Amino acid sequence: MRNRFYQVPHCTAFGTEKPWTQAAHRGVKAEGGWAAVCTEYAPFAPDTDEAPLVAARFWDEDDMRALRLMTDEVHRHGALAGLELHHAGNHAENNVTRYPTLAPSQTASDLHAHVVAKAMERSDIERVQRDWVEAAKRARDCGFDIVYAYGAHSYLLMQFLSPFYNGRTDGYGGSLANRARFWLETLEAGKRAIGDDCAIATRISVEGLGPSGIHVDEALEFVGLADPYVDLWDVNVGSISLWSHDSGSSRYFEEGYQLRWTGRVREATAKPIVGVGRLTNPDLMARIVRSGAWDLVGAARPSIADPFLPRKVAEGRTDEIRECTGSNVCIMKVDGFGHLGCLQNPTAGEEHRRGWHPERVEPAGDPSTPILVLGAGPAGLECAVTLGRRGFERVHLVEAERELGGKLRWVRRLPGLGDWGRVVDHRAVLLAKLPNVAVVTGKRLAAADVLDYGAAVVVLATGSHWSGDGLQAATHEPIDGADPALPHVLTPEQVAAEGRRPPGRRVAVYDAEGYVTGPGIAQLLAAEGFEVTLVTPLDLVSPLSDLTVEGPLLRRALHDAGVRMVRGVTITAVEAGRATGETEFEEPWALDIDGVVLVTQQVSNDGLYHELVADPAALAAAGIRRLVRIGDAVAPRMPSEAVFEGHRCGREIELPDPMAVRAYDRERWVPDVAPSMAR
Amino acid sequence: MRNRFYQVPHCTAFGTEKPWTQAAHRGVKAEGGWAAVCTEYAPFAPDTDEAPLVAARFWDEDDMRALRLMTDEVHRHGALAGLELHHAGNHAENNVTRYPTLAPSQTASDLHAHVVAKAMERSDIERVQRDWVEAAKRARDCGFDIVYAYGAHSYLLMQFLSPFYNGRTDGYGGSLANRARFWLETLEAGKRAIGDDCAIATRISVEGLGPSGIHVDEALEFVGLADPYVDLWDVNVGSISLWSHDSGSSRYFEEGYQLRWTGRVREATAKPIVGVGRLTNPDLMARIVRSGAWDLVGAARPSIADPFLPRKVAEGRTDEIRECTGSNVCIMKVDGFGHLGCLQNPTAGEEHRRGWHPERVEPAGDPSTPILVLGAGPAGLECAVTLGRRGFERVHLVEAERELGGKLRWVRRLPGLGDWGRVVDHRAVLLAKLPNVAVVTGKRLAAADVLDYGAAVVVLATGSHWSGDGLQAATHEPIDGADPALPHVLTPEQVAAEGRRPPGRRVAVYDAEGYVTGPGIAQLLAAEGFEVTLVTPLDLVSPLSDLTVEGPLLRRALHDAGVRMVRGVTITAVEAGRATGETEFEEPWALDIDGVVLVTQQVSNDGLYHELVADPAALAAAGIRRLVRIGDAVAPRMPSEAVFEGHRCGREIELPDPMAVRAYDRERWVPDVAPSMAR
Repeated sequence: MRNRFYQVPHCTAFGTEKPWTQAAHRGVKAEGGWAAVCTEYAPFAPDTDEAPLVAARFWDEDDMRALRLMTDEVHRHGALAGLELHHAGNHAENNVTRYPTLAPSQTASDLHAHVVAKAMERSDIERVQRDWVEAAKRARDCGFDIVYAYGAHSYLLMQFLSPFYNGRTDGYGGSLANRARFWLETLEAGKRAIGDDCAIATRISVEGLGPSGIHVDEALEFVGLADPYVDLWDVNVGSISLWSHDSGSSRYFEEGYQLRWTGRVREATAKPIVGVGRLTNPDLMARIVRSGAWDLVGAARPSIADPFLPRKVAEGRTDEIRECTGSNVCIMKVDGFGHLGCLQNPTAGEEHRRGWHPERVEPAGDPSTPILVLGAGPAGLECAVTLGRRGFERVHLVEAERELGGKLRWVRRLPGLGDWGRVVDHRAVLLAKLPNVAVVTGKRLAAADVLDYGAAVVVLATGSHWSGDGLQAATHEPIDGADPALPHVLTPEQVAAEGRRPPGRRVAVYDAEGYVTGPGIAQLLAAEGFEVTLVTPLDLVSPLSDLTVEGPLLRRALHDAGVRMVRGVTITAVEAGRATGETEFEEPWALDIDGVVLVTQQVSNDGLYHELVADPAALAAAGIRRLVRIGDAVAPRMPSEAVFEGHRCGREIELPDPMAVRAYDRERWVPDVAPSMAR
Repeated sequence: MRNRFYQVPHCTAFGTEKPWTQAAHRGVKAEGGWAAVCTEYAPFAPDTDEAPLVAARFWDEDDMRALRLMTDEVHRHGALAGLELHHAGNHAENNVTRYPTLAPSQTASDLHAHVVAKAMERSDIERVQRDWVEAAKRARDCGFDIVYAYGAHSYLLMQFLSPFYNGRTDGYGGSLANRARFWLETLEAGKRAIGDDCAIATRISVEGLGPSGIHVDEALEFVGLADPYVDLWDVNVGSISLWSHDSGSSRYFEEGYQLRWTGRVREATAKPIVGVGRLTNPDLMARIVRSGAWDLVGAARPSIADPFLPRKVAEGRTDEIRECTGSNVCIMKVDGFGHLGCLQNPTAGEEHRRGWHPERVEPAGDPSTPILVLGAGPAGLECAVTLGRRGFERVHLVEAERELGGKLRWVRRLPGLGDWGRVVDHRAVLLAKLPNVAVVTGKRLAAADVLDYGAAVVVLATGSHWSGDGLQAATHEPIDGADPALPHVLTPEQVAAEGRRPPGRRVAVYDAEGYVTGPGIAQLLAAEGFEVTLVTPLDLVSPLSDLTVEGPLLRRALHDAGVRMVRGVTITAVEAGRATGETEFEEPWALDIDGVVLVTQQVSNDGLYHELVADPAALAAAGIRRLVRIGDAVAPRMPSEAVFEGHRCGREIELPDPMAVRAYDRERWVPDVAPSMAR
């Protein structure tokens, strides 16, 4: 390894389904300086199937051909390639492959309560170990330098080790030596088979933080037992049902929070150790390595947010690191939506299909084109930065408020969301280094001002606002009596940006969206002593937070803050002192309150766009050749999508119809990969 | 069309991702007699993306090549092929493609509350229509005979028609004529482009049954307006947020229930009409057609359960129809899990990858092999039927109970689950026609009996039972004080099969599984006058019912039956008069009750297997060459998986290791399809 930066295995939803996308994504990280770059989980047998999640399936030669593209690309950039061979055991639903789920004992999965495993027979144990060894050999032949026995996240190896799963009475259950046997035999067989060719890594959660795993003292004992067969210890905490505590979001976990447990692994081994913990601070990284706790700085999310983090550190450009926000939007996109994406890095997942590189952009065709970008929210900021990087010489970014950030100005001040501000701060740093981009704040332009501005290209990124009248998905109607001019009706902006408060102590936060704003406002008000009831028409409070593995943490935080939660209620009318509506069972519902905050739906700030576009003659007369609209001004979306659209606009502004819907490479018809197989 | 059987568009999760699987699945239906066979929804532009759901994406020539396999296969069997060109508008999350969602007005989706659309500009309207026409031309060139403008399920065309979505003030909003304009223009342009080559079908929900759609009188007006451009009306009810009312499960909807609304379409058109309603009864089908209400009998689910339904009708083998159970397991598998499957038809989705045909099996290698199948639940029944169809001459199916069905004996008696009994009844009909399979009921065999039976092959399908001690996913421990010998502790079998009841009126049903058993027991007891509290550690009552689009209906039914629902509570102890546990926030919880029914986890009836397998010498001495275990006796699963495994065993019993985990064709590396393109 050329340095101490290590991209630990993480999901992408590319797996073996999108081999070129996989190769391009991992390759960019190798280019960006990571010394080793791993795949996601790689099931080596058909009875570990977690569909609809996408895996780097590694059943046979065909699957190997898919990942050969990745190892070639990673090697081309001088990094090592790692494969995380995987069996989920009890947590494999096997929905698609339809084989019985396996586990040491016949237990229902704590992750999927309806999945009950077959208690493995001796022949199952031998077969799984054999399959792992065969896959390890294929991995070597496929060019992988590091091959995993993946035991973290309460998957099969850990299930043998943990008494929570293992109730066996044979030689594989009972004492630690017995519970460790399956894992140890697997490692030993792997070492024998490929140990001269590849490094054997094992990933282990050294503290389950709950019943489904083991605790750190026993983990250290296991490390001691397994150490002879392991070349690299990849250590973390939690389990798959408490994955929230491993891939901890910034809302609930500090950078480096895992060290409390993973920092102890050194007590048991002198072998290389890699750990994680949403690390983006180079000083902290250096401190950890110097302390001897770990040898390598592992990263999943920080490597997605900035594939060039190692190189920026090496070149002393640490201020340019695109720091992970810890929003866990990547997890939502991978596991919930089916394609990796990132709040900070708009090129994540676009390396192959859109051909975007995180650090390289096409030079401007006509650099002298004067471009006005209106609105410095996530879309406008990213657009201006991209235009600036492309070398446009006259870019003006004009913002009505005195502060950059658009919606993130106040969202970043909601409890726990401070690190979301990195979206703004990173771009502010880059803008300060781009003399060709002028940033003007505190200036609200009307249509006439835009026409007079002297721009040939105008990009409107004017954002969106929360509807003050309670317009909502369930009814597509406003709420009776909802008017944010009334003292007892408030919008999120009025509460969080303007400091308005309800006229009494009892307040309902009505969250019809189900993401971060409703809970954030509720927590903000609860912390100030208001009696808060969060009311939602949805089945769950903030269901989207379940996609970022924050749901249980969020609901617990609300509960602990004294917020009462009411689900399945649609509010249809508000008046002074009272909100009324209907339950999921169509029964009347009412709550006595002093005020209500309406988090129902956002609407675009598109008045300026429509005013300008309605008068093509005026645009022509003003010399405005092109008027485009991006971000929430088009349709209110998550900030990640506004950043994406701002970036796209910056890259494609010179195309005939820059914001047109365009197809991209879908990796459908896969050509033969003979050339790379010929190596 | 060669007859009146029409497979309406339905999802498979194959789309253009698994073109061979798609072709094989649809081809089998064409072979089975359906006169027309359609794809699933086929997005024709990148800004209608419902990932992670899988679509028959139809953006360009490459996608066309994928579906060419399907049209060829369907034509080869003499049927017409239909393509459901689709734009979801407001309901497209565009998670993967990342383009703005479109809708007539800027509203949040009633299906995905966090998705807010761009209000379509005039240029968007023209572009979408243009994209549809271009796709329609490609569809024709791809061999499709029927091309859809898909307006049902509250997708984009319906969004223009419905005032719930359409608040426009231009020529596309307001009056019916204006709201219809987008749809009419689309149809007219399509008719002009391909009307001489293909039939133009439009699918419309003629009664939204809620706010998101239109009502039947206005629908008939629209049918009148569009009739000149439409060759086939494909009619249904509901919307995508009320899809539960279109793809209605047998638990809540009768066969043919849509006729109340779709039976009125004839008032407005003389063109062919196809309708649906989980129709499997040929007499009802004939009555509908003779009444003139519809011209064609449409089917989605019944065509999955029995691809050969039309042929069986034609051949007078109506008793052999494998009738759809209305369990909606297909929906769970397609939309939730990622690959079509069926409770009734184990070959659904296996046509290509496992090479299984619904009506053909390989003849037995050595027909004289005596085979004993023990247990006549879903796995054993299907296994015995398959062995019988293969021509094994000496198959004995021995069941301990007097009645066939295994678990389904009592599950089918739970409220609303009667049609699940079709799994048993269909196989009983087939067994009665198979003289080579002897069915013995009311006979419980011990290990010695098995050894003495004279079988060379023994298949153990002995099922599973609900754990009486409260063993559960969350703790992997029994519940303190849980013992089904106590009067206040009951298992589902005791309640539903044995008729035991709690010793007082207040009963808790503790459902740690989250599927049908807990709610079924709760409803059964509530109907008898018990005061029922359904307690679940899960976030929702019966979350798996949301995957069968039954969740809201189920919770409403429980509520209406007087069942109190408590979520997020783990019961850890029961005693006479009281259950105690912990809430999701780790706070103590208690409930005064007279009895508790424990629906926590099932465990395999595997004692006989382990007894036999432990003595290989005895097996050899008895002449038992092969002992295999299938179904819940291996690992308790949904009945669909038991049927699948029974079928697999029946097909693969002669392989060296019949129930071994085996890879199948994954359609990863797609060869060139030049041969079929050359046509």
